[in-house]
Amino acid sequence: MAKKPIPDIVVGRLPQYLRSVQRMAAQGRVVTSSQELGERLGISAAQIRKDLSQFGEFGKQGTGYQITFLIDQIRHILHVDKEWDVAIVGAGDVGSALARYKGFHNRGFRVAAIFDNDPEKVGSRVDSFTVLDTSRMVEEIRKAGIRIAMITTPAPAAQEVANMLIEAGVRAILNYAPISLNVPNNVRMQQIDPSIHLQRMTYYLD
Amino acid sequence: MAKKPIPDIVVGRLPQYLRSVQRMAAQGRVVTSSQELGERLGISAAQIRKDLSQFGEFGKQGTGYQITFLIDQIRHILHVDKEWDVAIVGAGDVGSALARYKGFHNRGFRVAAIFDNDPEKVGSRVDSFTVLDTSRMVEEIRKAGIRIAMITTPAPAAQEVANMLIEAGVRAILNYAPISLNVPNNVRMQQIDPSIHLQRMTYYLD
Repeated sequence: MAKKPIPDIVVGRLPQYLRSVQRMAAQGRVVTSSQELGERLGISAAQIRKDLSQFGEFGKQGTGYQITFLIDQIRHILHVDKEWDVAIVGAGDVGSALARYKGFHNRGFRVAAIFDNDPEKVGSRVDSFTVLDTSRMVEEIRKAGIRIAMITTPAPAAQEVANMLIEAGVRAILNYAPISLNVPNNVRMQQIDPSIHLQRMTYYLD
Repeated sequence: MAKKPIPDIVVGRLPQYLRSVQRMAAQGRVVTSSQELGERLGISAAQIRKDLSQFGEFGKQGTGYQITFLIDQIRHILHVDKEWDVAIVGAGDVGSALARYKGFHNRGFRVAAIFDNDPEKVGSRVDSFTVLDTSRMVEEIRKAGIRIAMITTPAPAAQEVANMLIEAGVRAILNYAPISLNVPNNVRMQQIDPSIHLQRMTYYLD
């Protein structure tokens, strides 16, 4: 499959397609269509066909998509046909909930370690993990070759944590701390802040 | 201020501007500029000036923005110059973490109730809340006039919960369940799924 630059907005829709078809597969389904996917996702069937066609030939007009084939292809495109180790920094409520979260299963991710700098938390158990001291973080992450991390610290600590993670080799950060982080161009960053998501909706409420 | 339709992509940036200037205010800052905001957020200064100009006159060329004025205006535009009651449905790890989350403070939201259908959870305490039975949800939400909810149930339950919430008068849903929900046009929906955010980044990792 020839690689050419794909707009990030298209890349951003692929995980949604994948989640939908994985759900169909779990329900025993074999074939789907751009129409059905579109209805489930609130995206036009034409858009879905156009998005997928950028990566190759996934189905024939009129016969739909083979679900297992589509899953394999999208997982390959998104590089989640392997399991990535993910580090969590911050063993508070959000970090602990993520450490226990079952939703990473079959999505390409596995929590590998959880760090905190609070002496009361270091050494304690969260799910099957022992909370490690942040002072060991750069060394541990480098040793384990971890390239993805989730930051769940309070806002004031988040930028320094991000700097340490990047120094250790992390190249993708999911930031739950309610602050904008500066990262170099070779590092990907996404943020999750429920207040930001809610405020985007209250604009439309009267 | 005359209201005209604003693109949703612009609306989506306002909460980020607000969070940044609120942080500056907390640090005792008085004035900022589109340049400074842009550097913090990774958005061009020109884009920020253009976005804000759609809502009125917030600053003069060369003198920057008064931070408290900008905060008041954006809060007004986003309708978070009041506090919205928010219901949580699902008292598992994620719902409980949200019930305890301190990050809604000063952002326009207040958790008002948490529901679950598990008899073992109903009646138990989460932070200062008693978990209520989902069977009472429509009645309670209607009575309290709650219009915003966060769904933190397992995927199979989420659509039915959404239907009940909408029946009860909810018009904005933040969906943490890893499934796409169908909602009518008069209901706003945003989703948070860490695997989706992570997969959007692994595309760029090799």
